[in-house]
Amino acid sequence: MPQIYDRVALIGLGLIASSMAHAMRAAGLAGEIVGHARTEETRRTALEIGLCDQVYETAAEAVRGADLVVLCVPVGAMGEVARDIAPFLEPGATLTDVGSVKQAVIEAVAPHVPVGVHFVPGHPLAGTEHSGPRAGFATLFQNRWCLLVPVDGTPPEPVARLRRLWEGMGANVDEMDAAHHDLVLAVTSHTPHLIAYTMVGVADDLRRVTDSEVIKYSAAGFRDFTRIAASDPTMWRDVFLTNKDATLEILGRFTEELFALQRAIRRGDGDHLHAYFTRTRAIRRGIIDAGQDTDAPDFGRTKVHR
Amino acid sequence: MPQIYDRVALIGLGLIASSMAHAMRAAGLAGEIVGHARTEETRRTALEIGLCDQVYETAAEAVRGADLVVLCVPVGAMGEVARDIAPFLEPGATLTDVGSVKQAVIEAVAPHVPVGVHFVPGHPLAGTEHSGPRAGFATLFQNRWCLLVPVDGTPPEPVARLRRLWEGMGANVDEMDAAHHDLVLAVTSHTPHLIAYTMVGVADDLRRVTDSEVIKYSAAGFRDFTRIAASDPTMWRDVFLTNKDATLEILGRFTEELFALQRAIRRGDGDHLHAYFTRTRAIRRGIIDAGQDTDAPDFGRTKVHR
Ligand SMILES: NC(=O)c1ccc[n+]([C@@H]2O[C@H](COP(=O)([O-])OP(=O)(O)OC[C@H]3O[C@@H](n4cnc5c(N)ncnc54)[C@H](OP(=O)(O)O)[C@@H]3O)[C@@H](O)[C@H]2O)c1
Ligand SMILES: NC(=O)c1ccc[n+]([C@@H]2O[C@H](COP(=O)([O-])OP(=O)(O)OC[C@H]3O[C@@H](n4cnc5c(N)ncnc54)[C@H](OP(=O)(O)O)[C@@H]3O)[C@@H](O)[C@H]2O)c1
Repeated sequence: MPQIYDRVALIGLGLIASSMAHAMRAAGLAGEIVGHARTEETRRTALEIGLCDQVYETAAEAVRGADLVVLCVPVGAMGEVARDIAPFLEPGATLTDVGSVKQAVIEAVAPHVPVGVHFVPGHPLAGTEHSGPRAGFATLFQNRWCLLVPVDGTPPEPVARLRRLWEGMGANVDEMDAAHHDLVLAVTSHTPHLIAYTMVGVADDLRRVTDSEVIKYSAAGFRDFTRIAASDPTMWRDVFLTNKDATLEILGRFTEELFALQRAIRRGDGDHLHAYFTRTRAIRRGIIDAGQDTDAPDFGRTKVHR
Repeated sequence: MPQIYDRVALIGLGLIASSMAHAMRAAGLAGEIVGHARTEETRRTALEIGLCDQVYETAAEAVRGADLVVLCVPVGAMGEVARDIAPFLEPGATLTDVGSVKQAVIEAVAPHVPVGVHFVPGHPLAGTEHSGPRAGFATLFQNRWCLLVPVDGTPPEPVARLRRLWEGMGANVDEMDAAHHDLVLAVTSHTPHLIAYTMVGVADDLRRVTDSEVIKYSAAGFRDFTRIAASDPTMWRDVFLTNKDATLEILGRFTEELFALQRAIRRGDGDHLHAYFTRTRAIRRGIIDAGQDTDAPDFGRTKVHR
């Protein structure tokens, strides 16, 4: 694959940034990869495991001379980082981000972007429950979607170039507007995460009642929820604080449906339950047909041994 | 492994029964395995793929001469099946079941059990989202728990023998009382399934709004819910109808917690969210340490290709 950017600066060196570094290297997409993270420890690790060619103590230093700057910090930290780096961005450079929420990031970042720098917000729909610089791997974005959310007035060339980068890392790229992005993600990601966190919290309370049986007998379904609810607390706090409206909207619908099912259980209305549970099967089929999940039973989980 | 029963009759030939058949054969635990299912098609499949040595058109015929009878039908069908087979059970035989709810099954089955037959209710905590006679595999119960729920007055020998059978199929066996079983399962399985079904139902409604984007972008977390919500509708209808009280109790706690988190989002209370999301991480750690799930990112899902 031909090189797409000469110098890429990754600000924040966690799961997403480290996966990008591995993926860009594997495909030869960047001349040089440099980075910055908040703590000394993460910066040291990034050098040690060869994520970056150079690591800087400040974001401002890291972005000098970069033709692509990628903000890979939690959504709530994007505005501050943008303010710090703004004076040091190269004219003609592209600034992008990987934040899970788009409207709030645009509001926080756009005002700092100097004229002549192209701000192209983005969001790869790929992740795992692990975080930090050691969590990344080159294939994370393979056959996953990356959504680009260009702001008004961005010329087509920087958008097309960023698209080529994501495609080079194995992703499929779509464009949409920020409000729509935030609604779709509230359904496919944010609300499911909140629900999983809630269910695990309830079980944690009951664990005291049931003497660890919740952990012991988790394989009956609950353990799937615990994986999602093991995701980074700071990242998810920021997601809910910044995608408040769409999340509350979807939560409202969720509660309404849940109450209807609860009433069906209370009344013994088996037909309602059966019809509901039949309808939801089709959507699984659609996801498997779209190549977005495996049909292997139980996700083909590798066998677990003590 | 030495043979434990001479003739095992499986009533219902779906995921659980077929997994038992494969596991018993693999370990040589049964002299002969016979079975019955409701439809001609399932009975034919069971013979074709060699699940059973013999298949009978009625449950009554299938149980004749069996020293172990296993009820593997949906929970709501257990009582009727028990009534049909009761006159044909061998004196000294053990009757067990694999139903996901225990109090309701005991209430429905116990009155039909003739004197001299030992009724030992059971529940293997193992399953996948697939169902039917082709869904089973020999390792389903490996390192999973099987809960036995002996009723008052059962002599120890039949319980110990059934325990050896489950251990022979790779399971770890625990005993507990029926009410406690139903509460623990409401937390680890029944409520999580209801919640997953609900979330997928909400997304299905919105799919029309978002033009299939819910399926396309499902990898962001939602697809985990769709796997759980692809489980058999009849099985789950019966579970909720028969474990009504415990499910409604846990649902009540769930809604309470969800409303507290929802209020924190509305108010922008990041500390509450962060503390909650941190607490839930520990329980995931416990499950991995207990050998009940893999620590591989994303369950080590095999790579998905179009
Ligand atoms: N994880 C996912 O599933 C996923 C998927 C798609 C998009 N995203 C988005 O990607 C972004 C990064 O997520 P991630 O999973 O890669 O997170 P992560 O593994 O937790 O890493 C976050 C990185 O940001 C750095 N950081 C945090 N606050 C900072 C600040 N104020 N200034 C400078 N650096 C700071 C951290 O530095 P230290 O290590 O030094 O603290 C760390 O290197 C988030 O916006 C998230 O919404 C995540
Ligand atoms: N799946 C799980 O994750 C799981 C885990 C633990 C326990 N369980 C419990 O195991 C039991 C069986 O579940 P499964 O997953 O094996 O179900 P399944 O794959 O859907 O199979 C159910 C079987 O029961 C038969 N059946 C249904 N109604 C019947 C009736 N009235 N009379 C005779 N046969 C009837 C069906 O026959 P046809 O095929 O001819 O219709 C089929 O062979 C349920 O009680 C369930 O609660 C399930």
